[in-house]
Amino acid sequence: MAGEFDFIQWIRDQQGSAAKDFVQVPPGDDLAVLKWQPDDLLIVGADQVLDGVHFDASRHAPRAIGRKAMNRNLSDCAAMGCLPAAAVATVALPKNVDIEYAKELYLGLREAADPYFCPVVGGDTGSWNGKLVLTVTILGRSGGVQPITRGGAKPGDAIYVTGHLGGSILGRHMTFEPRVFLGRKLAETGFVTAMIDLSDGLSRDLRHICKESGVGAVIDAAAIPVHDDAVEMRRDGHSPLEHALHDGEDYELLFTATDAGFLSMGRKIGMITASPGIWLQSGNKHEPLEPKGWEHTL
Amino acid sequence: MAGEFDFIQWIRDQQGSAAKDFVQVPPGDDLAVLKWQPDDLLIVGADQVLDGVHFDASRHAPRAIGRKAMNRNLSDCAAMGCLPAAAVATVALPKNVDIEYAKELYLGLREAADPYFCPVVGGDTGSWNGKLVLTVTILGRSGGVQPITRGGAKPGDAIYVTGHLGGSILGRHMTFEPRVFLGRKLAETGFVTAMIDLSDGLSRDLRHICKESGVGAVIDAAAIPVHDDAVEMRRDGHSPLEHALHDGEDYELLFTATDAGFLSMGRKIGMITASPGIWLQSGNKHEPLEPKGWEHTL
Repeated sequence: MAGEFDFIQWIRDQQGSAAKDFVQVPPGDDLAVLKWQPDDLLIVGADQVLDGVHFDASRHAPRAIGRKAMNRNLSDCAAMGCLPAAAVATVALPKNVDIEYAKELYLGLREAADPYFCPVVGGDTGSWNGKLVLTVTILGRSGGVQPITRGGAKPGDAIYVTGHLGGSILGRHMTFEPRVFLGRKLAETGFVTAMIDLSDGLSRDLRHICKESGVGAVIDAAAIPVHDDAVEMRRDGHSPLEHALHDGEDYELLFTATDAGFLSMGRKIGMITASPGIWLQSGNKHEPLEPKGWEHTL
Repeated sequence: MAGEFDFIQWIRDQQGSAAKDFVQVPPGDDLAVLKWQPDDLLIVGADQVLDGVHFDASRHAPRAIGRKAMNRNLSDCAAMGCLPAAAVATVALPKNVDIEYAKELYLGLREAADPYFCPVVGGDTGSWNGKLVLTVTILGRSGGVQPITRGGAKPGDAIYVTGHLGGSILGRHMTFEPRVFLGRKLAETGFVTAMIDLSDGLSRDLRHICKESGVGAVIDAAAIPVHDDAVEMRRDGHSPLEHALHDGEDYELLFTATDAGFLSMGRKIGMITASPGIWLQSGNKHEPLEPKGWEHTL
């Protein structure tokens, strides 16, 4: 891309003034300098979106691609119950796009992050003879609440899910709202024992929780909240329930909690068991819930 | 790539036990959790390497590509005078590579980071119908020394450079050692006013310091330490001096300091001036030093 220097200057011009105590050296130096609060745990991870896998650059606007890249990372914060604090982004730009396209990507990142007061404090822009890659690293902070891992589920815990599942490929995979505030509220209750965001599909992501926690699970098929999009996806030969169980990119929260009966923030869909294995209970049928997931083309 | 789950498990098996106080939740959860030291500034940034731009996947081994991706980020730490603390990495893998290739990339990251006790605490692996992209986000800590930015150069400061410059395309761009310990020592002296690592070439990177500091510079052509590789590159029609001034990817440190005469850690190549503009002094010729840099194909 021509004008990378101008682009960095433009990004610096986009900085708000709110966070100057926190961001001591803003984007444009070798690295950014942040003043981390004592006693705040630092929660960190990264996630990339790839043209042809997570979006289709010929069809999706750069603003929407930027939003998705940031929202996937914010969804990881949600799953930990932490507060987004700052982000770093890199972009590999195809040679045929211009600086306006890069600005739209950035504005998409910002549109997603700004509601959480999460500044984009650094990154790297490269131009290449390849397809678009946008990578975000997110820094979150504990803010006095212990982060929720995948490893804390106990036999007897109830399993909950937020929202409705399945068929996100019809559009929601680009437009979802990460459950940051909800994840935080859940962590604050003190009753949530394990949590993950649904990116790979319920049947796969529940497996992560069970593996990390050393437990099993029984899911009640009738309790799964099926999204209208999953019903519409029936046309591909899989049932709405199958879509709800196996489709990826719902970005809802799957969590386990000591069953205090108060949890109106999610829908109860099953129980954690001491014996390993993940089972689907449907009427009087009781069968293993295999992680399926089929490839959808964008 | 088949077996992403196995790959993540393999990565977890590679974790050392040294840093458990620091890394409270290791790779494999939604995000990693770190215990940041109170009073430690958090220095953060990211850098990517792209096939065909920063390396040639058909020619360079994955181990070397991994090392370069990490070393570029460590070089940014060097330029800030900070201590590498942790890294996060994402990789977009072409569909035709296998898990062994991904492991080699990871081992390359680790080979570069381990000497600095800098664990790789998280990341993301994706497979796509595109070329290899490896992205690293580095977290550094101040450890009691104020980070050195590009913005502190003052008129009268001397300009120094470490090592010898030019012609890195002949191989050093893949094999350089980041000047982490040297950058740290320089920051600890208290005499260094501005610093940058030479990734875009002396003529461009000096411009960054001058712009950020609101100053100009005069460079003494005879003082530039020219690398043997720059002499060899003469064959392309540019002089060794031109290569030393304009070639990128030396990953040496360019810094300014109050001229205390003690600085054996770099070679003095010029002076910072109050008047703007960057000049090259060569015998009795005095001409503007334009940022050139010509494209080299890998």
